[in-house]
Amino acid sequence: MSSNFEASKNVRTVEWNRREHAVELIDQRLLPNTFKVESFNTVLTVAKAIKDMVVRGAPAIGAAGAYGMVIAAKKTKNNDELLSTLQATKVTLDDARPTAVNLMWATSRMVEFAHEIVQGGFSHLECVSLLEEESKYLADQDVEVNRAMGRYGAALVPENGNILHHCNTGSLATVDRGTAIGVIYEAHDQKKNIHVWVDETRPRLQGARLSAWELMRYGVPIHVIADNAAGLVMLQGKVDIVLYGADRVALNGDVANKIGTYKISVVAHENGIPVYPVVPTSTIDLDCLSGNDIPIEERSKDEVISFGGRNVAPLDAPVYNPAFDITPNKYITGIITEEGICYPPFHISLRKAKESAEARIKKLQEERLKEVLKRKQAKM
Amino acid sequence: MSSNFEASKNVRTVEWNRREHAVELIDQRLLPNTFKVESFNTVLTVAKAIKDMVVRGAPAIGAAGAYGMVIAAKKTKNNDELLSTLQATKVTLDDARPTAVNLMWATSRMVEFAHEIVQGGFSHLECVSLLEEESKYLADQDVEVNRAMGRYGAALVPENGNILHHCNTGSLATVDRGTAIGVIYEAHDQKKNIHVWVDETRPRLQGARLSAWELMRYGVPIHVIADNAAGLVMLQGKVDIVLYGADRVALNGDVANKIGTYKISVVAHENGIPVYPVVPTSTIDLDCLSGNDIPIEERSKDEVISFGGRNVAPLDAPVYNPAFDITPNKYITGIITEEGICYPPFHISLRKAKESAEARIKKLQEERLKEVLKRKQAKM
Repeated sequence: MSSNFEASKNVRTVEWNRREHAVELIDQRLLPNTFKVESFNTVLTVAKAIKDMVVRGAPAIGAAGAYGMVIAAKKTKNNDELLSTLQATKVTLDDARPTAVNLMWATSRMVEFAHEIVQGGFSHLECVSLLEEESKYLADQDVEVNRAMGRYGAALVPENGNILHHCNTGSLATVDRGTAIGVIYEAHDQKKNIHVWVDETRPRLQGARLSAWELMRYGVPIHVIADNAAGLVMLQGKVDIVLYGADRVALNGDVANKIGTYKISVVAHENGIPVYPVVPTSTIDLDCLSGNDIPIEERSKDEVISFGGRNVAPLDAPVYNPAFDITPNKYITGIITEEGICYPPFHISLRKAKESAEARIKKLQEERLKEVLKRKQAKM
Repeated sequence: MSSNFEASKNVRTVEWNRREHAVELIDQRLLPNTFKVESFNTVLTVAKAIKDMVVRGAPAIGAAGAYGMVIAAKKTKNNDELLSTLQATKVTLDDARPTAVNLMWATSRMVEFAHEIVQGGFSHLECVSLLEEESKYLADQDVEVNRAMGRYGAALVPENGNILHHCNTGSLATVDRGTAIGVIYEAHDQKKNIHVWVDETRPRLQGARLSAWELMRYGVPIHVIADNAAGLVMLQGKVDIVLYGADRVALNGDVANKIGTYKISVVAHENGIPVYPVVPTSTIDLDCLSGNDIPIEERSKDEVISFGGRNVAPLDAPVYNPAFDITPNKYITGIITEEGICYPPFHISLRKAKESAEARIKKLQEERLKEVLKRKQAKM
């Protein structure tokens, strides 16, 4: 089983192959049994890979989408065709996971950037090359954001600390490193002698399948537990900090995350254990005032009643299978972002972090465009 | 799938076949996919059925053990052989599930009763017949106790009530009816228009596999949920009462039950939802002062990392797989027993219920023995 760790060393979840003009993805459906990197060199196969969950995790999907846009750009002949093709490609890719906000954000950014450089007077060849550079830059930015969250979060993890983690938030969910697991990697790199309780995370078992695999690959000591056992280890005093990611954070600090997060947070709170969601500021939704504004997505009943082709409940049993739950802000100690740790009152700290990040990104994008235009002028 | 409901109607989980001198068990390993009753007519096959979990649930195992003793008794030639055989058979059967307190209790009761009737002057043929009667009586008593708990408990279930239930505590775990599910059956019989959230109960999925099946068979409206979803339905106000069974109840009201019970109880408490374990007084351990005195049994890691022959985690992943957890008494509203509902302070109410039940059982046993002896004298 561990034999696939060696092959997987230094392989990013989402990687661009410059020579082949293809996006390379770790096929997450095969883990933990098989480690396999698949190459996709058409827009349609990238869209299908996103749809079929070869790749999952909001930031990883976003990066795959940006590379998909480059594949489309490479096949155009002139700037007019480039702009229209990118617009059409965005529709195709976004459609593969309509609820993935990061995917839409990444494809939009590529379209926007294309317009900026076409207007900047770049040749078609130059535009394609700059778009390729931009997609790589977006992916690298994701890793940078994760590393920043890792540094802020690792300071909260005590020496010899026991961490409880839910779902998968690691390198497999992102371009590399991860959000909550990024914090764990950083604490491990700092030689804090940590140990992680890995919630298996029913029904899709992202913890048992993916987090266990990648934490073991990285050499972090773990135990996999059934989600039901998380309460006991907290009661026994064997958890020092709870870390997880989030799908969406409301302005008041209510957190939508993988189903089961709410239960963990309440029990942690009851036992005086600090709870820190780890989220890039892109996950903070200032227009969403509280968790009440977040609709609960329901998934297929098959995820609950069958496993590995085997029924685990009567096939005609009614099932309620919510994808995530809402953890009210009172159970959350602080929210770790790339801008620092937000503490209550969250409506102030989260807004500040979000606005600071947006200003920083805007400035970076402007500087980047200026630099690109300067290069253009220097060449003329 | 539901097609097996018809065949299963009015079939007890554990039944004595008088003609064949055999114990008949619903093979619970095959549920929910296949409903099959298997017949066991030797002590060794009964012991193996207990060991292999054809039958599970403390009261059901106890009844199977008592019938196993009758099988042994039937094969003896005289009263001396009867007593020595029963003693040896008790060792064989107890050994099949060394932690099953009910099994040991039932086999002990059969040995004790054998001594009483042999001393009472009954012939070998009469003794065997009386032992057979006693085993049937023990099984019927289990159903009676369940029905009494059902009546006390159903009074707590509101009209149109939503119940959250963990693990399996129904007719499949007992001779018939069940403990917590016995309360649900009674409330359903009273036409209270109830609905049950059935926790799937990882890792062994007794909820999804067994509770869903038997509640559907009985016509009780349910939804199966991943254990992780129980928090959300409580937060959404969709749970009126939490009912579960217990492996052991300490004098102070701390409850050892299937892993995950603690988390549910804390979240219910946080949401103002009443929590009632449903337990026969035989489960109350007056010598156990608090949950701290109850050691946590660990089970095989295979239960967590593989399912149906398919790995759901790296095979070499370390696993912590506790069989049950301890719910401190502060999260428990009341404890439903066949003697009534015990409320805090539990060390008083539980002792009273336990002593009252023991006095009642002792009186019943004495009356039973007297009646048997009277029958004997009448015949002489």
